[in-house]
Amino acid sequence: MNPPTSVRPVDAATIDGYTHETDVVVIGFGCAGAAAALEADAGGADTILLERQSGGGGSAALSGGEIYLGGGTETQQACGITDTPEAMESFLLAALGPGADAEKVSLYCRDSVAHYRWLVGHGVPFKPSLWESPTWVPPTDDGLMWMGENAFPFRDITTPAPRGHRVTSDGFGGKVLMSVLAESITTSGVTVHTDTGAAQLIVDGRRIVGVLARHFGEVVTYRARSGVVITTGGFADNADMVAQHAPQLVGLGVNSDGGDDGRGIRMAQAAGAAVKHMSAGQVGISLIPGMMVRGMIVNDLGQRFINEDVYPGLVGQAALFKHGLRVWVILDEQAYEEVPEIERWGVVPHFVAETVAELEREIGMPDGALQNTVAEYNRHAAAGTDPYFHKSARWLRPLQAPFAAIDVRKGIAPPEYGAAGGGGAEVFTLGGVCTTVDGAVLDLDGEAIPGLFAAGRATSGLHSWGYISGTSLGDGTFFGRRAGAAAADSCFHAP
Amino acid sequence: MNPPTSVRPVDAATIDGYTHETDVVVIGFGCAGAAAALEADAGGADTILLERQSGGGGSAALSGGEIYLGGGTETQQACGITDTPEAMESFLLAALGPGADAEKVSLYCRDSVAHYRWLVGHGVPFKPSLWESPTWVPPTDDGLMWMGENAFPFRDITTPAPRGHRVTSDGFGGKVLMSVLAESITTSGVTVHTDTGAAQLIVDGRRIVGVLARHFGEVVTYRARSGVVITTGGFADNADMVAQHAPQLVGLGVNSDGGDDGRGIRMAQAAGAAVKHMSAGQVGISLIPGMMVRGMIVNDLGQRFINEDVYPGLVGQAALFKHGLRVWVILDEQAYEEVPEIERWGVVPHFVAETVAELEREIGMPDGALQNTVAEYNRHAAAGTDPYFHKSARWLRPLQAPFAAIDVRKGIAPPEYGAAGGGGAEVFTLGGVCTTVDGAVLDLDGEAIPGLFAAGRATSGLHSWGYISGTSLGDGTFFGRRAGAAAADSCFHAP
Repeated sequence: MNPPTSVRPVDAATIDGYTHETDVVVIGFGCAGAAAALEADAGGADTILLERQSGGGGSAALSGGEIYLGGGTETQQACGITDTPEAMESFLLAALGPGADAEKVSLYCRDSVAHYRWLVGHGVPFKPSLWESPTWVPPTDDGLMWMGENAFPFRDITTPAPRGHRVTSDGFGGKVLMSVLAESITTSGVTVHTDTGAAQLIVDGRRIVGVLARHFGEVVTYRARSGVVITTGGFADNADMVAQHAPQLVGLGVNSDGGDDGRGIRMAQAAGAAVKHMSAGQVGISLIPGMMVRGMIVNDLGQRFINEDVYPGLVGQAALFKHGLRVWVILDEQAYEEVPEIERWGVVPHFVAETVAELEREIGMPDGALQNTVAEYNRHAAAGTDPYFHKSARWLRPLQAPFAAIDVRKGIAPPEYGAAGGGGAEVFTLGGVCTTVDGAVLDLDGEAIPGLFAAGRATSGLHSWGYISGTSLGDGTFFGRRAGAAAADSCFHAP
Repeated sequence: MNPPTSVRPVDAATIDGYTHETDVVVIGFGCAGAAAALEADAGGADTILLERQSGGGGSAALSGGEIYLGGGTETQQACGITDTPEAMESFLLAALGPGADAEKVSLYCRDSVAHYRWLVGHGVPFKPSLWESPTWVPPTDDGLMWMGENAFPFRDITTPAPRGHRVTSDGFGGKVLMSVLAESITTSGVTVHTDTGAAQLIVDGRRIVGVLARHFGEVVTYRARSGVVITTGGFADNADMVAQHAPQLVGLGVNSDGGDDGRGIRMAQAAGAAVKHMSAGQVGISLIPGMMVRGMIVNDLGQRFINEDVYPGLVGQAALFKHGLRVWVILDEQAYEEVPEIERWGVVPHFVAETVAELEREIGMPDGALQNTVAEYNRHAAAGTDPYFHKSARWLRPLQAPFAAIDVRKGIAPPEYGAAGGGGAEVFTLGGVCTTVDGAVLDLDGEAIPGLFAAGRATSGLHSWGYISGTSLGDGTFFGRRAGAAAADSCFHAP
């Protein structure tokens, strides 16, 4: 027996009778695992869902609850929005790439309305009202939001439509999504084993035939007659893996339930799985988009670096990957006052000054740095243009005294945003094992490993380097369903 | 038998007699492979060196020939330079990190003088004269050069000393290095098999016991009684691997001999090896450092982003990773004239203008963008300071009409720089398999895979995200030697 830390596969010949036998074993009860288990069950497979913690939910339950859906959902229609799968696909390829999985993106967009209906059919609520301003998540219970589709450069690539479907909730929607899916699991034929941490895959030659897990320290073994589906999440909580694969994310706060330890990815790798896009990450930073979009975001040399009306996650990636998070939101009193109280999340600026020169000195920027930027911004804004970054005219206005600055690294995010303890940013990883659109895990030769499936953040899904909120829950549930169905289907074809 | 494209290991039980038997097999005759083979031979092991091409050299033979060495080498002493291993270590940790392998860096610095002497002992020439100005490689035959040790922020971290030991040559020094090492191989006991491409490892359980290779289409098998050393280079020539692991390098020119296809990395992975830092890359861009340092480098919004006197590879990484290579060198006539003819490499500016406003328009920058930057640069330069990026006062002077601009993406590099065909940049990868300081390849559990060693760019060596020229040949020869010695040593301890 290997030590508990080992992810090396166990030879089936060494297993002296299994604790449990079933058709499909799904590892991890987050959104991908729930979707996979429901579809495996619906496909007629005996299905056991393993969860290391005492209850389901995973990181999905802690998320804002945005699901990226479009192409003409009933929620979009009720808000008077016209959309097509083609426009959705063009946006996602631009926002998630270069290198986004074109086949996955295409399928995801083509079947998005159907997936929306599957979610709604299980009871997921989306209030048919639109939140108009850039935000991480609406401060209201609105069920539809823009994800930067109407901002440069995306607005010029394809017809913009808001596609952020936010699970209706009095706060973050992830817990509502997961309670709905958990309820469906309860009324399904799926058996749930909680407090059961999968440790190693069991192999017969190349074929995955089961899972060795631990339940309160006891070894339990599962024979999976047709397939094992890994839906264990990313690796943001594993400091060694982050250092090895995503060095730009080292030392930051993590957005997860604490269980994104990458074990499922490593178990798959040890059984031959290939991985990709391991350096990619989402970067949530401590700022209020409603303030930023009415002012500007600059690095610590006073340079702007992005149009402030894009999806704030893209601002976060640029802030971290290009400027080491040393960034400031600059605004004036009018901008601050314009942000509705409900959207301020209690944030108060760190510096206030009567002149830009004074603000610049207080922040510690070089003499002239911010003065030049604000003067240039104001000169063009007066003409209603932003020739540097093409922020929409809607948000352009010369800034006037008094001025204010917010230090993004101070981690001023309110509790609703999570701790944001790690220097003003919370990250999660986007890379993982390589899969087909049906969740089959691929080895280094590009061939499917028999009996092994995966979905959610344990895989490299729709994303390459880019990220738009809603594509995690979207990717997890959509491809989770496909992986579960494929694993169930293979039970009728397994040799 | 797996198809030729497969990297899946071959079970030793299926091998019906080996074509060749030896103690150590080294795969790849670049600088790491040559060093490994020489030390395995010196350690008393029967050693066969496999090379897919018709002769040795690898990418090393096409390189500039810089080897990063220090701590008080005889070449440094002859140039009047004082240095210590501690200062060298501080510089490398700062320049190659965060996340550089501290144990490898420490050992590399501590034993650097000894490694220098090993190289010189084999006949590697370093002319004891110093090239003073920032450059990719001296246009003269000088044997010592600065690698940005005297630029911000490094000059403030530790005592600066030039450590770029450039193999003396009438041009690029890599070919001289490799001809010297090849000559040593010839007079050693090492057997070289050229035109022999390693395809798969041969395994007995977890232990690596040999190599299956192809020689003009024929399968040849090697039994390695004590160890296999993979020194096959990086994966910059493998478009699929680049897309999967280093998406920021996609579509660029490649600096290699064309054989950096990552096969050795994948062979090791398929046998269980862990990899790290796969997204890291060196970025050589088409600019003349002597021109840039006397002027400035800006992005296409006219923003400066780095002090122009650092090692130009760091400028290249910033230009690609932060500005998508959309960068321009801006200089004035005096700066151009000051660059010695020999250092101009035939480069002529793309735009010349009497005013900055005119230059800005010709380039297509927003109105005011470059004007503000140059005015700000000149204002501070007149006072001898650069509060933005801390370029050394030596290079600061207000720029005066007429002005000129060089488009880095135009790929204007002369032949000596390589093709630089890919939009003005040539890259190579820095990630690879995880190894100990003795070259033992580690699996996902962090345990050595018995019988498997690796060195050079097939491994993740000294580097994390940063890169300084000379650390490739340095890492390859230094850790190649250690891997070869360890493989030889294990022949006296193998079970």
